[in-house]
Amino acid sequence: MSILVVGTVAFDAIETPYGKTEKIVGGAATYICIAASFFSKKINLVSVVGDDFPSKTIRLLNNKSVDTEGLQIKEGRKTFFWSGKYHNNMNSRDTLETQLNVLEDFEPKVPKKHTTSEYLMLGNLMPSVQKKVLAQMKKRPKLIVLDTMNFWMDHYLEDLLEAIKEVDVLTINDEEARQLSQEYSLIKAAKKILKMGPTYLIIKKGEHGALLFNQEEVFFAPALPLEEVCDPTGAGDSFAGGFIGYLEKTQDISFENMKRAVIYGSVLASFCVEKFGIEKIEKLTEKEIDCRLKNFVKLTSYNI
Amino acid sequence: MSILVVGTVAFDAIETPYGKTEKIVGGAATYICIAASFFSKKINLVSVVGDDFPSKTIRLLNNKSVDTEGLQIKEGRKTFFWSGKYHNNMNSRDTLETQLNVLEDFEPKVPKKHTTSEYLMLGNLMPSVQKKVLAQMKKRPKLIVLDTMNFWMDHYLEDLLEAIKEVDVLTINDEEARQLSQEYSLIKAAKKILKMGPTYLIIKKGEHGALLFNQEEVFFAPALPLEEVCDPTGAGDSFAGGFIGYLEKTQDISFENMKRAVIYGSVLASFCVEKFGIEKIEKLTEKEIDCRLKNFVKLTSYNI
Repeated sequence: MSILVVGTVAFDAIETPYGKTEKIVGGAATYICIAASFFSKKINLVSVVGDDFPSKTIRLLNNKSVDTEGLQIKEGRKTFFWSGKYHNNMNSRDTLETQLNVLEDFEPKVPKKHTTSEYLMLGNLMPSVQKKVLAQMKKRPKLIVLDTMNFWMDHYLEDLLEAIKEVDVLTINDEEARQLSQEYSLIKAAKKILKMGPTYLIIKKGEHGALLFNQEEVFFAPALPLEEVCDPTGAGDSFAGGFIGYLEKTQDISFENMKRAVIYGSVLASFCVEKFGIEKIEKLTEKEIDCRLKNFVKLTSYNI
Repeated sequence: MSILVVGTVAFDAIETPYGKTEKIVGGAATYICIAASFFSKKINLVSVVGDDFPSKTIRLLNNKSVDTEGLQIKEGRKTFFWSGKYHNNMNSRDTLETQLNVLEDFEPKVPKKHTTSEYLMLGNLMPSVQKKVLAQMKKRPKLIVLDTMNFWMDHYLEDLLEAIKEVDVLTINDEEARQLSQEYSLIKAAKKILKMGPTYLIIKKGEHGALLFNQEEVFFAPALPLEEVCDPTGAGDSFAGGFIGYLEKTQDISFENMKRAVIYGSVLASFCVEKFGIEKIEKLTEKEIDCRLKNFVKLTSYNI
């Protein structure tokens, strides 16, 4: 059993009301792999970086059971770079700069031994790349999760709709769910989106938690209220990594188990935002995860 | 055992993206009393209206076990009137018109037999009026809940802080918690506010649920995701009514029971917003409440 993760491995420069970073390591797949590594011991990465990317980070991933054979390192080229500034409420941000660099002409290549991975996490990336990865899978994975964002809805909707049609779980935020469905009510939005292909939909609401839908049911998991939110970057990816990591570990893709996976995803996201970049999650211990999980249970449990 | 409710009984004219009303019956105390009446059979109202207020509504309250002896009806005067327009996301609104009318010189008079009520709900109103009611209580109620809003923080902060000092539970929304505490993080905000007097704090987050705090614990209850939100007016008051009504019914003011009361408050609020004004909650049945409670439990339950 293993998880194939495709997504960006990148540099970010981030400004939030709590501070500002130089170029630091980021990227959807980086967060996903690290978060999933607390549950799964077989993670396969498909991505691309330039030769400016630190080998230290690749070693970090390898130490966390991430097989980086599918990570292309382009000689003489530069890694994808994104720079952004969060507004005061941390719920919205402005992109200051995007340098696509190696992403411009990225052709994902899934190593042959990874084409039978049973769990596939299509991290936020061009829908055409997500589709190319899907096409390379030798057999249909047991579970395909796709994360995306408004940018692809604005510019590559057709590609995105084709990709969405093929997946089991779609994860987007509330504004994106509204955009994709043209419905304000999230209940109505979910109904429409579930007709587009996926069996499950996760609507991420940031500090307001996450909703998990299938055709008949809905489950809500809050976000843990935190004393300090330092940097929201990667929260959604850490959520996705925790979610799919837990599902792979438990080998159970029932709705009941997905609820637990959503809680674990929320736990990982709650750590992610406490420091800039991957600083917090790269050093996380199982004990910390267990302890926070208990806080989640305490936060939400009642008898009625 | 009984609940004393003080707050406005009023006329509203409301505009939302879903429609527009003429002058309809509203007011914090109206919503509180109706919501509480599903749990408590002894509710005492202290408020004021003009002689333009429909006796039909007073009869409705009486039929719902509300004793209106403390409701002053001012001859030749007009009832408090508020008119507002909600923005597209329903989270913010503009006040179009406020006619204080009988509220201008309102002197609350708690009927003697109600000065020993064991539960006191100080609905959103001038803090000076809330204080005058407190001063008329013959013995300290078992539980005092105070609801307020940013307007009083802006203009009557000193009075408000004095009132808050005397109460057990303060209910405000997230923006108001931030304003009152000068802290963005709701965890930090709660810590500061709990030092101002109340033992419990409820932070209402509208469609994003509610948080219940004491010094050591925090509990989160989501709002039920709804297909249609027609009019948010009175949601917070219906929440407060359901909350204190359930506490009075169960005669248990432990944190564990307050969690249940928060859930019942959310159930009542979820009905309130489905139609304009009191239209939905005035005709609610116990069966509907039980059914929605089950939906809440389903929405939030997981085993981990």
